[in-house]
Amino acid sequence: VKVATLSIGDELTHGEIVDTNAVHIAGRLYRDGLKLQRHLTVGDNELDIVEALELLADKADAVIATGGLGPTVDDITARAAARLTGRRLMLNDEALAHLKRFMGVQDGPLLVLNEKQALLPTKCTVVPNPTGTACGFMVIHNGRFLFFLPGVPSEMKRMLDETVLPFLLERRRSHRFVGTRVLKTFGLAEAELDDLLKGMATPEISVGFCVSFPEIMVKLRAEGESGEHLDWLLANAAAAVQEKLKGHVYGEEDDTIDTVVAGLFRETGQTLSLAESCTGGMIAARITSQPGSSAWFREGMVTYSNEAKSRLLGVPPDLIASHGAVSSEVARAMAKGALQSSGGDIALAVTGIAGPDGGTPEKPVGTVYIALASRAGCHAKGYRFSGGRDEVRVLTAFTAMDWLRRHLQSRSSAPPAGGTAQVS
Amino acid sequence: VKVATLSIGDELTHGEIVDTNAVHIAGRLYRDGLKLQRHLTVGDNELDIVEALELLADKADAVIATGGLGPTVDDITARAAARLTGRRLMLNDEALAHLKRFMGVQDGPLLVLNEKQALLPTKCTVVPNPTGTACGFMVIHNGRFLFFLPGVPSEMKRMLDETVLPFLLERRRSHRFVGTRVLKTFGLAEAELDDLLKGMATPEISVGFCVSFPEIMVKLRAEGESGEHLDWLLANAAAAVQEKLKGHVYGEEDDTIDTVVAGLFRETGQTLSLAESCTGGMIAARITSQPGSSAWFREGMVTYSNEAKSRLLGVPPDLIASHGAVSSEVARAMAKGALQSSGGDIALAVTGIAGPDGGTPEKPVGTVYIALASRAGCHAKGYRFSGGRDEVRVLTAFTAMDWLRRHLQSRSSAPPAGGTAQVS
Repeated sequence: VKVATLSIGDELTHGEIVDTNAVHIAGRLYRDGLKLQRHLTVGDNELDIVEALELLADKADAVIATGGLGPTVDDITARAAARLTGRRLMLNDEALAHLKRFMGVQDGPLLVLNEKQALLPTKCTVVPNPTGTACGFMVIHNGRFLFFLPGVPSEMKRMLDETVLPFLLERRRSHRFVGTRVLKTFGLAEAELDDLLKGMATPEISVGFCVSFPEIMVKLRAEGESGEHLDWLLANAAAAVQEKLKGHVYGEEDDTIDTVVAGLFRETGQTLSLAESCTGGMIAARITSQPGSSAWFREGMVTYSNEAKSRLLGVPPDLIASHGAVSSEVARAMAKGALQSSGGDIALAVTGIAGPDGGTPEKPVGTVYIALASRAGCHAKGYRFSGGRDEVRVLTAFTAMDWLRRHLQSRSSAPPAGGTAQVS
Repeated sequence: VKVATLSIGDELTHGEIVDTNAVHIAGRLYRDGLKLQRHLTVGDNELDIVEALELLADKADAVIATGGLGPTVDDITARAAARLTGRRLMLNDEALAHLKRFMGVQDGPLLVLNEKQALLPTKCTVVPNPTGTACGFMVIHNGRFLFFLPGVPSEMKRMLDETVLPFLLERRRSHRFVGTRVLKTFGLAEAELDDLLKGMATPEISVGFCVSFPEIMVKLRAEGESGEHLDWLLANAAAAVQEKLKGHVYGEEDDTIDTVVAGLFRETGQTLSLAESCTGGMIAARITSQPGSSAWFREGMVTYSNEAKSRLLGVPPDLIASHGAVSSEVARAMAKGALQSSGGDIALAVTGIAGPDGGTPEKPVGTVYIALASRAGCHAKGYRFSGGRDEVRVLTAFTAMDWLRRHLQSRSSAPPAGGTAQVS
């Protein structure tokens, strides 16, 4: 089944919003082994839409169009579909009943403005919309299936998953199955991953990378005759990747480093306090982004100034004077101070030079020290990150989260083995 | 000049990356009054590319294609362009010289892999690429201008601005000018803005809104015969919007609330400390995202637990017991405690219920108190934000930044006039 997609809306042709629907549908089709042949975007203009549908239906077996099903005068997709297929727009009973149910006016009349959303081409099939007013619809034109969905991403996604994709998959000519598995990694560069995973790809399994700074996803994709065979192939491949990449895989699929670390705190019952300098609260913000984090997060201190490091964390001023605020010694003292003051189980501290100013030949911008203190002791390590202020801050915060993951996973306080360059 | 755009790449048709090039070019064209007629996306397949170019050139005066100019075997755009126009691929002297210069091998030979990037269709015009190896090119086909640019966003953007847009603007048939101006607002809903700005649009000025949670941009767009006339129109319209929206406009164009607040701290020489509960470090992270913030940011305390609020900020435990941790009284005590401990000029505190748990009938999820203390006194206000955990946290942090903006702008400590619902 060859599929084409169409996005409709002046907000797209004016460059006002990014077309996230197109990438979402493309990803879903690819995951399910359906080929996206091409994607087209046009503005809210009836003739442009008609012409676009003609073009796309000429080469594809199915077209999925999104946008232009709303109640306002701009929304003319249904009219364009009717014109293309030589049908009339009629009040569709099913869509009207849905609309009334949705707006809570089961028996009474609707505003004309809203009623418009139930005006669909004759002889169409309604695509139910469980979460919004505008039903979608499907018409068959010259043997091609044309689907029309609303542009609201949350509504579109559900309708795609619940109606459109199952319909297309049933009509797939070849009965081959496709499966994917995504492993999330941190701490290795793309070239390093490429090298470590050389030779992993087979005729049945493809291995791809997708960089999403500062992490890299390893995407495994398999095609085969049966779903069980695929699961087996993917499970084996995922285990092999895990083995090759050691601790650099932190999660799979929808995991984020924040959810993984939150899960580990929940499991282990450990408590955390933070002392941040260059990340200025970013680590605390990541930790507290997770529901229930008050159970394990004690407190965070953002100590930008030397004076605050001494007053709040008890870092001796002469330690700062002799080693500099950005040093392994001060990172350790910050972590130990935070541990002592909070009475928690773990304290993590970061101090670094995010730039653009403040770098020196010995400690250039990007120099960062991370320390982790627990009842078992205190470890520190230096990094030299590249990039501008934003990149250094994001890398530091992510690396700190990864330290917490590794610490909680090992339940020991051995320093994490990192793939990032060590300063000293 | 009607323009069509084409994005080329399997990573797009597989749904692996969002097509930011398409939205960037669309926005640029719209800003300059050029019409984007339609946008098409296809994968790395020569015939698909040829067909796409034919389709687009059929109706548009110019086509801007991005992607597929790299050195690997996937990159077949130049071949497709040659096939479409019936030309041959030849080593282009200008592109080759650029490539050698760029790779630092002025005299010696190039690797075959790299040389491929200088293989361009005969009789094309090179589009210089100041920041990368792959030159772009332009060919004229059936009187239409076809531009080919690399897919790397930073390279594409410069080539678009420096070569493609000036070329197209020169060929524009009507000599009408187009100008835009963007005002950034916070604290009013779209319907409120719509109501306040009713009647502002004229035949010469259009007024649009663009919601980018939690802020809303007001976009003014004017068309006219002369650039000066446009500037005058837009300046008048912007002043009228400012007047109608009072303090809700926080900046223009590329301003963010973070850069605006940083500028005000820089100007006024005031210093800041923070005490955060529900935002968990997000306000500190915003403040420290700005270069030079160590000059005005003293310290931040993330006090999630009641015990930490008392120990670090000196909030009396019985105040928490009698009013609850999420209360106007505790917010004030947190701000005063932070001001006293840090010795800075301003302290801002937030305490609230971000959810999903912790809400009560009197204080549901979304209840937030913000307090600002300075030498002139202390003010607090309650909010009831709607949305889930993420939205409540983002709204709270943004509102806090807006308090700082209003406080520093007024140089007094009057409580900011907000458009958001007050709790008590």
